[in-house]
Amino acid sequence: MKFSPLFWPIQLKGNTLFILDETLLPQKLAYVKAKTYQEAAKAIKDMKTRAFGQVLLVFCIFLLVLKQNKDKKNIQPLFEKVARVINATRPTLPFKFLTDMVLGWAKTGDVERKINGFLEVLKEKRIQRAQEVAEIIQDKDIILTHCNVSGELALIAEFCRSQGKHIEFFVTETRPYLQGSRLTAWELNLAGFPVTIMTDGMVASIMSQGKITKVIVGADQLAQNGDIANKIGTYQIALVAQHFKIPFYVLCPPASSAKTGKDIKVEIRPDKELLEYQGIRLAPYGVKGFYPAFDITPSNLITQHFHLRIAR
Amino acid sequence: MKFSPLFWPIQLKGNTLFILDETLLPQKLAYVKAKTYQEAAKAIKDMKTRAFGQVLLVFCIFLLVLKQNKDKKNIQPLFEKVARVINATRPTLPFKFLTDMVLGWAKTGDVERKINGFLEVLKEKRIQRAQEVAEIIQDKDIILTHCNVSGELALIAEFCRSQGKHIEFFVTETRPYLQGSRLTAWELNLAGFPVTIMTDGMVASIMSQGKITKVIVGADQLAQNGDIANKIGTYQIALVAQHFKIPFYVLCPPASSAKTGKDIKVEIRPDKELLEYQGIRLAPYGVKGFYPAFDITPSNLITQHFHLRIAR
Repeated sequence: MKFSPLFWPIQLKGNTLFILDETLLPQKLAYVKAKTYQEAAKAIKDMKTRAFGQVLLVFCIFLLVLKQNKDKKNIQPLFEKVARVINATRPTLPFKFLTDMVLGWAKTGDVERKINGFLEVLKEKRIQRAQEVAEIIQDKDIILTHCNVSGELALIAEFCRSQGKHIEFFVTETRPYLQGSRLTAWELNLAGFPVTIMTDGMVASIMSQGKITKVIVGADQLAQNGDIANKIGTYQIALVAQHFKIPFYVLCPPASSAKTGKDIKVEIRPDKELLEYQGIRLAPYGVKGFYPAFDITPSNLITQHFHLRIAR
Repeated sequence: MKFSPLFWPIQLKGNTLFILDETLLPQKLAYVKAKTYQEAAKAIKDMKTRAFGQVLLVFCIFLLVLKQNKDKKNIQPLFEKVARVINATRPTLPFKFLTDMVLGWAKTGDVERKINGFLEVLKEKRIQRAQEVAEIIQDKDIILTHCNVSGELALIAEFCRSQGKHIEFFVTETRPYLQGSRLTAWELNLAGFPVTIMTDGMVASIMSQGKITKVIVGADQLAQNGDIANKIGTYQIALVAQHFKIPFYVLCPPASSAKTGKDIKVEIRPDKELLEYQGIRLAPYGVKGFYPAFDITPSNLITQHFHLRIAR
């Protein structure tokens, strides 16, 4: 099975972290090099990597710190410092849950083996989940997606292809960062699947024409009641899908400590990211923008959650 | 009362049409000069002007042709040729209805006076309608709009201001042409009203937070049953507004011959307009886009239609 470069976008080689720079895609496939945990945390804050890439990076940052420090027995204070830096990068994402896992392992010793073992299981479970999702996809399905599910949608499509199912994709461009066109359309096209880009405003129009049979999106955070936080724009796709009775599937991370979507703090990003694109001003000067990076889709709009089957 | 430059974006001076080049806004307030009807029709096709500007331009093109031809008694064959060129520019817009009006007037003589008289009434009725809409707006309303209503929203806001009502606006950027941020946010800000730009994907999120009290949009075509064609993205805003019980108001042109929305042919624009922005490629090469310029919002989602009260 082939993997999208987005499926495992972080590599630790020697004392350097290679972080796939998603902001340069689709024009350029390049990696940011981080030699310190501060540099790596900055790559999260600057959204060089996102979603699964950020989760992966959190663990790899600790592996980097371990490599750079010989005194592994007294690593705890340093690990706590690293965790604080990571947790401060982006408020919506449940990084604390991840850093707490690592801090817990560090207390019991042999943390390097535990992190590596966890990442191995993580890879395996993501592959299993892609297989699981592929099972519910039928020949000739036309799948709408939003933003990017970090290589997992391309893998789902690979499984469908190996099962002889022909499927195609509509991808919202996903303003303002255009992850849909820059990443998802790119990786699906790279793997040879038919994909059409649309704007975020076309969902109702395209669904009303019967062009979409299923929606599949990811989630940045899962609350305990099944509500999800995902890229801004997800909620209205779910509402419109319900109107047209189109099933809406979500690939979820493990649940966070949030009881419901109301407990999830949504990050507000600088409005410049919405009002400019690659140095070109899109909007008039003097007008402000509002850019919540995520929205909350209530569980009752979700047909099925696909969980990562990782023991807690 | 002050008018937005978008309220009356076409001027005929001497033998030249001055067409407000909306594609250069908000960076530059400039006019395309057209000295022939072919040049003016090209400005429609190239979307230099749109919506009401195009309607106005249709009439002004005939005024230009009249100025350029001394033999006004035998103008009919030339007018028919001009009408064909205009009607071929964009399929969704009911230009034929407009050109048929002019051809009818030309048969009865004194067409110049009739066109000018019609434009005068048109201006007056648009002002009246803005007043009418202002009546239903309450102090502290927060109005969401999409695309651009050609200066009429700014005029509505002026009436509200003169009545002592404080209102503010959220404007979808309106991909792919960004009429919302480039035109609507620009003209509202120019006139001193608080306005916030959001992406097209944020509607459900922002409505769910109780930030919006009314939606006001325009329409490019009105079917006889009240369905409207408007800028792509309108339909899902109406669906989401209904979900949150937020009233959805439409400023409509006179009804076309379409019985329902199903009879309206939706123009599909080149996907390049979606995949590139000002020469920057947004999407990966080799991936196609889909760009229906309009969508159809069914009448049952519309709280109230505001008609131009022009006798047929």
